[in-house]
Amino acid sequence: MKTKTDSGNFFEDFKLGHVFQCPIPRTLNQGDISNYISMTGDRTPRFCDARMEIHPLLLFHLVLGQTVRQISLNAKANLGYAGLLWQRPAVAGDTISTTAEVIGLKENSNQKTGIVYVKTRAQNQQGKEVLQYNRWVMVNKRDEKIKTEYLEKPVIPELPSKIEPEMLWPVKEGIPTKGITGGDFIFEDYKVGERIDHVDGLTVNTTEHMSFTRLFQNGAKIHFDNLLTDGKPLVYGGYPMSLGYALGFNGLQNRTGICAINAGAHANPVYAGDTLYAFSEVLEKKNFGADARTGAVRLRLIVTKNMRVEKVDSFQIYPEAGKKVLHPNIVLDLDYWDQIATGA
Amino acid sequence: MKTKTDSGNFFEDFKLGHVFQCPIPRTLNQGDISNYISMTGDRTPRFCDARMEIHPLLLFHLVLGQTVRQISLNAKANLGYAGLLWQRPAVAGDTISTTAEVIGLKENSNQKTGIVYVKTRAQNQQGKEVLQYNRWVMVNKRDEKIKTEYLEKPVIPELPSKIEPEMLWPVKEGIPTKGITGGDFIFEDYKVGERIDHVDGLTVNTTEHMSFTRLFQNGAKIHFDNLLTDGKPLVYGGYPMSLGYALGFNGLQNRTGICAINAGAHANPVYAGDTLYAFSEVLEKKNFGADARTGAVRLRLIVTKNMRVEKVDSFQIYPEAGKKVLHPNIVLDLDYWDQIATGA
Amino acid sequence: MKTKTDSGNFFEDFKLGHVFQCPIPRTLNQGDISNYISMTGDRTPRFCDARMEIHPLLLFHLVLGQTVRQISLNAKANLGYAGLLWQRPAVAGDTISTTAEVIGLKENSNQKTGIVYVKTRAQNQQGKEVLQYNRWVMVNKRDEKIKTEYLEKPVIPELPSKIEPEMLWPVKEGIPTKGITGGDFIFEDYKVGERIDHVDGLTVNTTEHMSFTRLFQNGAKIHFDNLLTDGKPLVYGGYPMSLGYALGFNGLQNRTGICAINAGAHANPVYAGDTLYAFSEVLEKKNFGADARTGAVRLRLIVTKNMRVEKVDSFQIYPEAGKKVLHPNIVLDLDYWDQIATGA
Repeated sequence: MKTKTDSGNFFEDFKLGHVFQCPIPRTLNQGDISNYISMTGDRTPRFCDARMEIHPLLLFHLVLGQTVRQISLNAKANLGYAGLLWQRPAVAGDTISTTAEVIGLKENSNQKTGIVYVKTRAQNQQGKEVLQYNRWVMVNKRDEKIKTEYLEKPVIPELPSKIEPEMLWPVKEGIPTKGITGGDFIFEDYKVGERIDHVDGLTVNTTEHMSFTRLFQNGAKIHFDNLLTDGKPLVYGGYPMSLGYALGFNGLQNRTGICAINAGAHANPVYAGDTLYAFSEVLEKKNFGADARTGAVRLRLIVTKNMRVEKVDSFQIYPEAGKKVLHPNIVLDLDYWDQIATGA
Repeated sequence: MKTKTDSGNFFEDFKLGHVFQCPIPRTLNQGDISNYISMTGDRTPRFCDARMEIHPLLLFHLVLGQTVRQISLNAKANLGYAGLLWQRPAVAGDTISTTAEVIGLKENSNQKTGIVYVKTRAQNQQGKEVLQYNRWVMVNKRDEKIKTEYLEKPVIPELPSKIEPEMLWPVKEGIPTKGITGGDFIFEDYKVGERIDHVDGLTVNTTEHMSFTRLFQNGAKIHFDNLLTDGKPLVYGGYPMSLGYALGFNGLQNRTGICAINAGAHANPVYAGDTLYAFSEVLEKKNFGADARTGAVRLRLIVTKNMRVEKVDSFQIYPEAGKKVLHPNIVLDLDYWDQIATGA
Repeated sequence: MKTKTDSGNFFEDFKLGHVFQCPIPRTLNQGDISNYISMTGDRTPRFCDARMEIHPLLLFHLVLGQTVRQISLNAKANLGYAGLLWQRPAVAGDTISTTAEVIGLKENSNQKTGIVYVKTRAQNQQGKEVLQYNRWVMVNKRDEKIKTEYLEKPVIPELPSKIEPEMLWPVKEGIPTKGITGGDFIFEDYKVGERIDHVDGLTVNTTEHMSFTRLFQNGAKIHFDNLLTDGKPLVYGGYPMSLGYALGFNGLQNRTGICAINAGAHANPVYAGDTLYAFSEVLEKKNFGADARTGAVRLRLIVTKNMRVEKVDSFQIYPEAGKKVLHPNIVLDLDYWDQIATGA
């Protein structure tokens, strides 16, 4: 008998091309804005003003939370993101509905797990898309004795290695100025290759990581249950992302906010009690033209735990020569696009 | 001299028929909705949409908090509830004012305490009732040497053993569908006698139980003071009620929300660090008619601490044969009415 | 090379007469009201009703938070406040912008630090002032070997020892009554010299003090970083101020809210785990006239940690004879004006 309780999908349950309608549509409100500031300390000016625009990462966590029950309740690992683009602003009062389409399936050779590739699309109450991204997760099989067709014939989608800067839309409202932010540096001042030390540290506490995760109705039990986790509930990976981004304001004061994610890795787990630090590296720049009030900057955000990197310029992200293995204190390696006010 | 500080009422201070105007009227806002989600993880769709309807339990905690100063500041125990009915929806922006009428008094034979029965009524800014319930609490006497008339002639009100289903109003707005909730089961699928395992666990943390209680301006010191409580402030009994109800979504996905409480017992105390689990039993069903978009389901919600019930069907709620003594890990036994979307 | 990271100003960076435009203007919203109640338990009726008026202390913390980056990021100590006046109400939806003018400079004789006096002014989106205060902080020098002109010729501004009651504006909206608050005492009942025991205790927890501080985007690292502080992040001094004021409701039930601060001292640090208690002393009264619906009361709020003062009337605020040294358990000594409903 099928139980009334939803126990999530296993690898065999995913059908190529199937589109999940993700529960529960949710209306964003002013309280979500206040809570996001209270939980992260984020100061990006565009999300503090009277227009009540929703922070892009708040929207992302909400949408990801909506997909958890169907996509990742039985996930063993969150493997990656690609092609994440915020398509238009959301404001308090908008209602967000989300779908997740299965675009790829690959059974792993151990026959215990498989990889599910989904394309997530979130739209507002007018049916307009606000956020789109690809994500792939490792999911448990229901039965490891029966192999699926995706063991020998995996379907792996072509995913963009990055969002091309031409796909970004220049921000027109809520653009900061030196006078407003106290930050001296504008788009023109940032150089490809430079690193920015974000200086401050933030300790993650028990209650706030759970409150943050619940705000987005993400009920994955591993984040909430002391008994199940021997007293160490895993912090939802999106929380260090938001905290690292908030820390990143110091050094990027005239930014208008994250507008795309090219790639991201939750490299190591975070638990309550860990203290997070961050630095950024400028990877690429895109000038939107002489009249544009912002320019795009591609950044690599590195968040470390329990280790402040004092000299960011000489820090080895991959400490072992010749190996692409992240430093063990790195918890997040995020490749994203932001925009920074120009001198225009 | 009467001190300026309000030290609450003792048994002798309650007069039969007296109606307390409870402080402080409070306007509910969008932030309360966001905080309630963040503190409980509740996903009931009707309280996540653009109508900004207030969760019935949020309203209940607010109203109960308003009565604390006059009714239960000197309470030794919260003995029970009866006949609790939400009479109409409340939305963000509504201002809630509450009265409490003394409807019964009984001095206990030890002459140290008495039982006070009150009928609480909450109304909105239009003077329309939104919530009504009976509650009885054990209150300390001011002077145990002087007996009151209620020792020998107690006045015990007749209280309804349950809300009759005819008193419930079928929900018309915010009704979920399988497509919205991802839940396969509708009203017709639930059988009287069946039990539903809600699977997930939630650990209660120090800060969040205090924040929850303060949100409702319930200032009973036992919940907040480490010194007074030897480092173990008691969790407000309404928090496990809300957490258990939130856990209950998994298995009751197409519910429209709690609409009446027949009886409730806070069977054991909860402290920070306890992990809560829940299951439900279907006690009764009421069909509102062929055209109704919901049907009423009477449920018994059992919340346990630090013990997940693996096999809910065979679990003994009263483990000792012939005795109506709840299992020691049960913290809440709640008999309530909900409504679930029909196939109509 | 100047780094992109803002490392705050040192004593030498402050120029007499310079006016800082403080980052970031912020729009207050309904969520801030809900969070303030949830974090403090404050019950002052004027800030709980449908007008969505912002609690004066919430506004103060927001404004102070806006000044941190430029004024006090390198502060060694927060020395005092003077002449703090709330000039008009703020409501949800108002956008607050703040400036800080350097009005005094004094290099200390050790040549390691100096004192910076600033006048802070906050205005709403209509350019109208909502809050004004003077504050002085001890700030590190960048170079202790080079003395400044302010070592020998300090400029010390004249600061008001108190806000004269004539400067206060009688509150006209949101005035409580005995019926609303359950409090029996009105303006006429309070006597100069009397002390009021606020009875209840509140334990400060790790997460909530950080959430509170972040809500106001106050990023001073000493409040957030376990590693930097050997596991004891300092609680932002504004939190015990708000908690003490919230505790003070019990005994001042018919108040309309703090309207000016004459002086304040954060006498001892507070850390997570400390339990706070409070009492008040009536210092002065001002009758606004026979028709006025409120009268002004000048109060001294004493907040203690880990020690409940049982007999407030005989408690020695300065236990050593002849010395103006506060009792070591006092964390806050606040001299402020409130208003209390009259019998008019």
